[in-house]
Amino acid sequence: MTDHEPVPAVRETAGAIATMEIRGAATIADAAARALAAQAREGDHDDPGAFRASMRSAARTLHETRPTAVSLPNALRYVLQRMEGETVDALRRNVVSATDAFVDQLDRAQEDLGQVGANRLADGDTVMTHCHSTDALACIEAAVEQGKSISAVVKETRPRNQGHITAEQLREAGVSVTLIVDSAARRYLDDVDHVVVGADSIAADGGVINKIGTSGLAVNARERGVPIMTAAQTIKLHPETLTGHTVEIEMRAEEEVIDPGTRAAIGEIDVENPAFDVTPPRYMDAIVTEHGQFPPESIVTLMRELFGEGADEPWAEP
Amino acid sequence: MTDHEPVPAVRETAGAIATMEIRGAATIADAAARALAAQAREGDHDDPGAFRASMRSAARTLHETRPTAVSLPNALRYVLQRMEGETVDALRRNVVSATDAFVDQLDRAQEDLGQVGANRLADGDTVMTHCHSTDALACIEAAVEQGKSISAVVKETRPRNQGHITAEQLREAGVSVTLIVDSAARRYLDDVDHVVVGADSIAADGGVINKIGTSGLAVNARERGVPIMTAAQTIKLHPETLTGHTVEIEMRAEEEVIDPGTRAAIGEIDVENPAFDVTPPRYMDAIVTEHGQFPPESIVTLMRELFGEGADEPWAEP
Amino acid sequence: MTDHEPVPAVRETAGAIATMEIRGAATIADAAARALAAQAREGDHDDPGAFRASMRSAARTLHETRPTAVSLPNALRYVLQRMEGETVDALRRNVVSATDAFVDQLDRAQEDLGQVGANRLADGDTVMTHCHSTDALACIEAAVEQGKSISAVVKETRPRNQGHITAEQLREAGVSVTLIVDSAARRYLDDVDHVVVGADSIAADGGVINKIGTSGLAVNARERGVPIMTAAQTIKLHPETLTGHTVEIEMRAEEEVIDPGTRAAIGEIDVENPAFDVTPPRYMDAIVTEHGQFPPESIVTLMRELFGEGADEPWAEP
Amino acid sequence: MTDHEPVPAVRETAGAIATMEIRGAATIADAAARALAAQAREGDHDDPGAFRASMRSAARTLHETRPTAVSLPNALRYVLQRMEGETVDALRRNVVSATDAFVDQLDRAQEDLGQVGANRLADGDTVMTHCHSTDALACIEAAVEQGKSISAVVKETRPRNQGHITAEQLREAGVSVTLIVDSAARRYLDDVDHVVVGADSIAADGGVINKIGTSGLAVNARERGVPIMTAAQTIKLHPETLTGHTVEIEMRAEEEVIDPGTRAAIGEIDVENPAFDVTPPRYMDAIVTEHGQFPPESIVTLMRELFGEGADEPWAEP
Amino acid sequence: MTDHEPVPAVRETAGAIATMEIRGAATIADAAARALAAQAREGDHDDPGAFRASMRSAARTLHETRPTAVSLPNALRYVLQRMEGETVDALRRNVVSATDAFVDQLDRAQEDLGQVGANRLADGDTVMTHCHSTDALACIEAAVEQGKSISAVVKETRPRNQGHITAEQLREAGVSVTLIVDSAARRYLDDVDHVVVGADSIAADGGVINKIGTSGLAVNARERGVPIMTAAQTIKLHPETLTGHTVEIEMRAEEEVIDPGTRAAIGEIDVENPAFDVTPPRYMDAIVTEHGQFPPESIVTLMRELFGEGADEPWAEP
Amino acid sequence: MTDHEPVPAVRETAGAIATMEIRGAATIADAAARALAAQAREGDHDDPGAFRASMRSAARTLHETRPTAVSLPNALRYVLQRMEGETVDALRRNVVSATDAFVDQLDRAQEDLGQVGANRLADGDTVMTHCHSTDALACIEAAVEQGKSISAVVKETRPRNQGHITAEQLREAGVSVTLIVDSAARRYLDDVDHVVVGADSIAADGGVINKIGTSGLAVNARERGVPIMTAAQTIKLHPETLTGHTVEIEMRAEEEVIDPGTRAAIGEIDVENPAFDVTPPRYMDAIVTEHGQFPPESIVTLMRELFGEGADEPWAEP
Repeated sequence: MTDHEPVPAVRETAGAIATMEIRGAATIADAAARALAAQAREGDHDDPGAFRASMRSAARTLHETRPTAVSLPNALRYVLQRMEGETVDALRRNVVSATDAFVDQLDRAQEDLGQVGANRLADGDTVMTHCHSTDALACIEAAVEQGKSISAVVKETRPRNQGHITAEQLREAGVSVTLIVDSAARRYLDDVDHVVVGADSIAADGGVINKIGTSGLAVNARERGVPIMTAAQTIKLHPETLTGHTVEIEMRAEEEVIDPGTRAAIGEIDVENPAFDVTPPRYMDAIVTEHGQFPPESIVTLMRELFGEGADEPWAEP
Repeated sequence: MTDHEPVPAVRETAGAIATMEIRGAATIADAAARALAAQAREGDHDDPGAFRASMRSAARTLHETRPTAVSLPNALRYVLQRMEGETVDALRRNVVSATDAFVDQLDRAQEDLGQVGANRLADGDTVMTHCHSTDALACIEAAVEQGKSISAVVKETRPRNQGHITAEQLREAGVSVTLIVDSAARRYLDDVDHVVVGADSIAADGGVINKIGTSGLAVNARERGVPIMTAAQTIKLHPETLTGHTVEIEMRAEEEVIDPGTRAAIGEIDVENPAFDVTPPRYMDAIVTEHGQFPPESIVTLMRELFGEGADEPWAEP
Repeated sequence: MTDHEPVPAVRETAGAIATMEIRGAATIADAAARALAAQAREGDHDDPGAFRASMRSAARTLHETRPTAVSLPNALRYVLQRMEGETVDALRRNVVSATDAFVDQLDRAQEDLGQVGANRLADGDTVMTHCHSTDALACIEAAVEQGKSISAVVKETRPRNQGHITAEQLREAGVSVTLIVDSAARRYLDDVDHVVVGADSIAADGGVINKIGTSGLAVNARERGVPIMTAAQTIKLHPETLTGHTVEIEMRAEEEVIDPGTRAAIGEIDVENPAFDVTPPRYMDAIVTEHGQFPPESIVTLMRELFGEGADEPWAEP
Repeated sequence: MTDHEPVPAVRETAGAIATMEIRGAATIADAAARALAAQAREGDHDDPGAFRASMRSAARTLHETRPTAVSLPNALRYVLQRMEGETVDALRRNVVSATDAFVDQLDRAQEDLGQVGANRLADGDTVMTHCHSTDALACIEAAVEQGKSISAVVKETRPRNQGHITAEQLREAGVSVTLIVDSAARRYLDDVDHVVVGADSIAADGGVINKIGTSGLAVNARERGVPIMTAAQTIKLHPETLTGHTVEIEMRAEEEVIDPGTRAAIGEIDVENPAFDVTPPRYMDAIVTEHGQFPPESIVTLMRELFGEGADEPWAEP
Repeated sequence: MTDHEPVPAVRETAGAIATMEIRGAATIADAAARALAAQAREGDHDDPGAFRASMRSAARTLHETRPTAVSLPNALRYVLQRMEGETVDALRRNVVSATDAFVDQLDRAQEDLGQVGANRLADGDTVMTHCHSTDALACIEAAVEQGKSISAVVKETRPRNQGHITAEQLREAGVSVTLIVDSAARRYLDDVDHVVVGADSIAADGGVINKIGTSGLAVNARERGVPIMTAAQTIKLHPETLTGHTVEIEMRAEEEVIDPGTRAAIGEIDVENPAFDVTPPRYMDAIVTEHGQFPPESIVTLMRELFGEGADEPWAEP
Repeated sequence: MTDHEPVPAVRETAGAIATMEIRGAATIADAAARALAAQAREGDHDDPGAFRASMRSAARTLHETRPTAVSLPNALRYVLQRMEGETVDALRRNVVSATDAFVDQLDRAQEDLGQVGANRLADGDTVMTHCHSTDALACIEAAVEQGKSISAVVKETRPRNQGHITAEQLREAGVSVTLIVDSAARRYLDDVDHVVVGADSIAADGGVINKIGTSGLAVNARERGVPIMTAAQTIKLHPETLTGHTVEIEMRAEEEVIDPGTRAAIGEIDVENPAFDVTPPRYMDAIVTEHGQFPPESIVTLMRELFGEGADEPWAEP
């Protein structure tokens, strides 16, 4: 439909997301929201119905570029959810204002959640980390900036050893770091006051999808009596899980686990390399977001508040 | 005292253990027991008291070569524990017969315990392994020899990747193998029927000292409802723990965890590399030995039966 | 008060509920909501106060027919909760629109929650069922319709063997069924990927009231590491529990447990036959509704959103 | 700024809170809310901006008197949260109406939550209490007033033996009381149907801060299969915890634990006397408030509904 | 070999066991032990070697009649284990005396263990039973004979309703009985002081093999904080499990679960009817035998004391 | 029977025990064993049968003085258990030698178990204590003598505040002490490496009977991941529990809990003051005795080894 043809800003953003010129959860969400605002401002609509249809169409265009990303539909849902009004003017004003709020919040999200997470840590605490998460790091760094002395036990996080990056950044932030192999976690939990992890995404049933090994660490943290928190911006809340969908776990390259030469020497074996696992809510003490902290069991209410009930796709044609 | 001067066989064995010419838990135990038999047969004693003193002295000589080994004092305790009799002849006979029994059992131990462990496995089972243990492998291989079809999920076991050796040997035994990183264990436990691990040593309170990562795996196996067994010859039972001693955990080279170049790039960090951890008995379903299977909580009775109460050092001077 | 005399549709509906001509949770809720709409449309009111009073009076008439039913007050609460406006016209419009929304949602509820529940199941899964619940069946059947191959272990569910009905309906839906006695559940949980049950009602503290045996099954599912979900339309949410009321458990006929002849042969014994038990939220992974899935601990927020705070009876005279 | 100078009622209330003339969580909250209403009614403002600024200023004045109290900022947040409108008139009307609602609810809170808690108890129940909490007592007394026969096992609650007060008040309410030392709790839990405690404050992560010993009691109640509830008015919900702040635990006088003479006789020892501890949500079955009961994991949604997101201080200067 | 031809008493006993003329665990064990005594007394042997060989041969003959029975090899092991001596006379004396001891103990076993189990019960206790076990009943009846007032909650125990027999016998013993369906167990555990079950056999790893449903009951008893004991004569200790063998679970007739007519009406379904399940030792508080009570984790020491290490078949040809 | 009239030493010892001139578990056991030795040496017997009868008679005389003590029958059982031989001389020799062994071991028991317990502690550990137990103190003091630096968190242990004695003695031993009320235990467990308690007696099912509050502490120690050990000489092993007898818990004076004046002011209340509670074996990591350490689940084997099977009273007339 020609009058639904998105404005150039939408088309360009969609293109850039598709070609992965725009990448990263926050960057994608930011760009998508801004594109919707452009559509609202620049689109040429006679009546409220046409305005709505053109917004849905723009959202659809954007959504189709990366249908499995988490942050993209969240941005679209946030804005369309707030597209209310009886006149084109009112609709436009509300969309733009929702976009501003979204972008603004996104901009401060990591810093804000860092403060929340930092507030959970005490001066002198030792934290344990798994993998590399800028959200988790933001909590620890904010604690240091609050003047707290923090030490860290850093799991190397096979197969890609992202723990090395975490170790380096914590080191730079003034945190004293002890690096261990993943298997040594339980032994060091007795010296740890808090486990801090990030999230790839978070499900409506409170499950935390994060780097493989998180769930086993969480089970051991509970057994050792050590609290554990997930730091995650709300763009990681997975809206499809509101309707029961499970998050598909990416299987990564086998070469990350074993180099082909060594493998050939061993003989005919299978190698499996799942990127993530799911930690049930009963093993996680808190999810720390830019909107404050939540027990995993109630994160669903935040999801619904921000992104709606999830049953419908707001960009769908009526 | 000259009449306590050990016979040449004892001196030679002691030397070979000290220089690590003789090494490996079973080999050391075997050599030490045979040396005691030589002492009994070849020593020149007038009376029972002198015989006993010379045996204690020989044992002392052997013990001093590797005071922290587990199998060496076990061999000495087993034999001296059975040094009974009123005459030199009777004493000699009992010592030699105890030695024969010990050596004989040692010889068949791995095969015998392999049968016991194999009996716990069912046709079609998938097992999970951690590190490389010939005792654990003996169980799986015996199961295959019993005609059972067995698959294995093999943890690579950082930092030294002994899982690669396990993978290779299982492969050769006709077991289909899936290799995973250690952190992926919990995810694969749902597909696993039995976890099978070995032991570095076993404590009187039922604790299993084994390759770092075992205890975290055991906690997760219990949480997932998967049974777990330790396969260990009785020379691994740590007699000092009968009197409350804890087993000191070896800290290994930091280079095993991270190569110096990468570490230097990260900056000033600590690296810790403990070789073992302790799995509490409540997370282990059975300890499989050449004397049958035992719940970890009752292994202490087998220790006392084989090696005595542990309070005294039977080689001590009176 | 004569001007509060309900319209004929209300009187007729009340009569039909009282005589159980209208029965079944969904049917009652539907009829009650429609009766309120009739009252709003057909009632003759001069002013907003009179309109409100007549609506409350109609609701009171309907409520008194079955004061312990769960779905009836839910329907009344849903509609009266949304009775807002400054004019009779506005009030009427809002009531009718609330009724329409309620009836519409009710109509699609089972299908919608079936989709949500089905999304939690994977191709190849084996589910375990207890009793017979059309909501639970809707989830499994929707999974089959999504093209997933599903098997089921069906508990017979003494004393009335509703498992036979479940077995038959699953069979017809193309699910391969294994029937077991209730006591065999723990043994088969190792082969099961998901337990799916329904609910008689759900409490604000997250407790799930369902057929006797559900709570014992849930405890064992947790112990075996098997996820369990409750499928329940929101008309099953028990609003009185918002204010702490416990759900009274119906005691059913003793003859369902043992026939009188056998009992007489045994001698003087008591027989107890409770219809339901309560599963604490910590043993339930998710509650699946037509509004999406929720951890049991947050179902209270959905209850409050749909039916209000529960402290007052909106049909009470001021 | 002179036009922000609070009205006399605000200054007087602030003074009385500062001098502790006004004390007690409910009394402080009531006075603070009324002072804000006075400010709204009596303040002299030309425009909405000035009105808002004067209200913030008044709130700031009140807040500074006791910055660590829980109920004071809750009262301020509740009212300022509802300060909406485009005109001074509308703003004033909304503030006054929010104040009325707050004061009214506060007035009925203990009675209302008593009803909710009582509904959880059954005729013939034995409850166990810890410390002295008028909210907890309200539940038990309401149950007695509902005609239920209730017995109580009362822990003395060292070091200050508030259990004696509880015993006396329960006695007067017609409850038969058994007094025990705190250490005897686990032994008597087998005879107990419900544990009922109060709260000093409640955190957004579901943690219940209450008299030292509560968390150990809760762990044992769970182990013994006995349900436990916290009775707490919503002014106890700690809004700072929404942003991750932990509640600082007061350390009380050492003389409460041991009299100086006895201590001197023992010699150089430390004595520690923390007033409270934190019970994790997984060990608490329900939080009973005047707004109904909630699983601890969802109390955060009630906090946000009543007092806002907690990220900003609504009394802060813009 | 003609000189190993068993005496007539052995041949007759073997025949009667094979034809199931002699049946029941205790009856078989008694007959087998007596047959060995007859062989010792009546056999015609010149030398110790021949005596031993003839005893082994007689045992072999008896063993082959029912190779999967538990009590038969136990009787044989008990006697052959004690066949010691340097002369035929000494051997004969020891065998006969071992037989006498075995038969004597067997004779008093149920009464003796009944006393032990009764001692664990207190006046006024309510017990819960599963299935019908004369050993379990012996404990409850002995408690009544000790003057204790006992009530019982009796699970009907589908599919064969052996609970009806239990109910009748408890009734006759003066126990007040409440009959429930199996699924109601968790609900009634709150009123129960002790769960008492029997055993089909007991494994060296502490697992209790008993009527299907026992393990699920035990898990719930632990969750509810109710102690549970197994009453079992030592002839139920399964010696093959010492060497890791698992006990094969009998699958019984499908008609016990559902009558063919009802099944046909349902359509093509599988029906499974396992007779037993395995309760892990961590869910069982004590095993009560005629030799006293044992935690399940140490029953292996009693097995070894009574029946040897289990690695060899003492009736095997050398 | 006149020839069974005990020798004067037996009569005097019996008298002194009866009048509590001889008191304390170890003192009574020592005196009783020595009295039996006197009877063996000084009694005038013609034949083995008469010797045995006179020993039983002496034991009976001693036993009747304090039939509910634990250590007294243990001493008698230990000696009579070893009364073996075909001649009066051999019997006498064995009895005297058993007495010597018993007395000797008793003499060194606390020191020996102190070493065992100390070995479980590490340099720098913080221990938590409950009540006052010289056996528990022996472990901590031995650790200090081994050169380890130990700190202690001492629970005051209401109602009699024996923690004050513990605090004083630890202080004197060079341990830095922090005194807390009992309710503060869980909060301080995070800083504690080991809980060390004594025992009033220990049951065959592994239950530890100790000062009220021990079981609640043990449950919390497990929940917090802190190991806990019981230090107890073997004279505390309760032989009657081998046959299922439960240990009766002493109810002490109500005045210990509340002084009569305060109580009168409260009004008509019950006060209960149980002296002990029972900690199930699953919450205790080890029992430390002079014969080494044992998991609670295997202490029964030590009981049987030292004191026999417990089924018979060895002092009973045949």
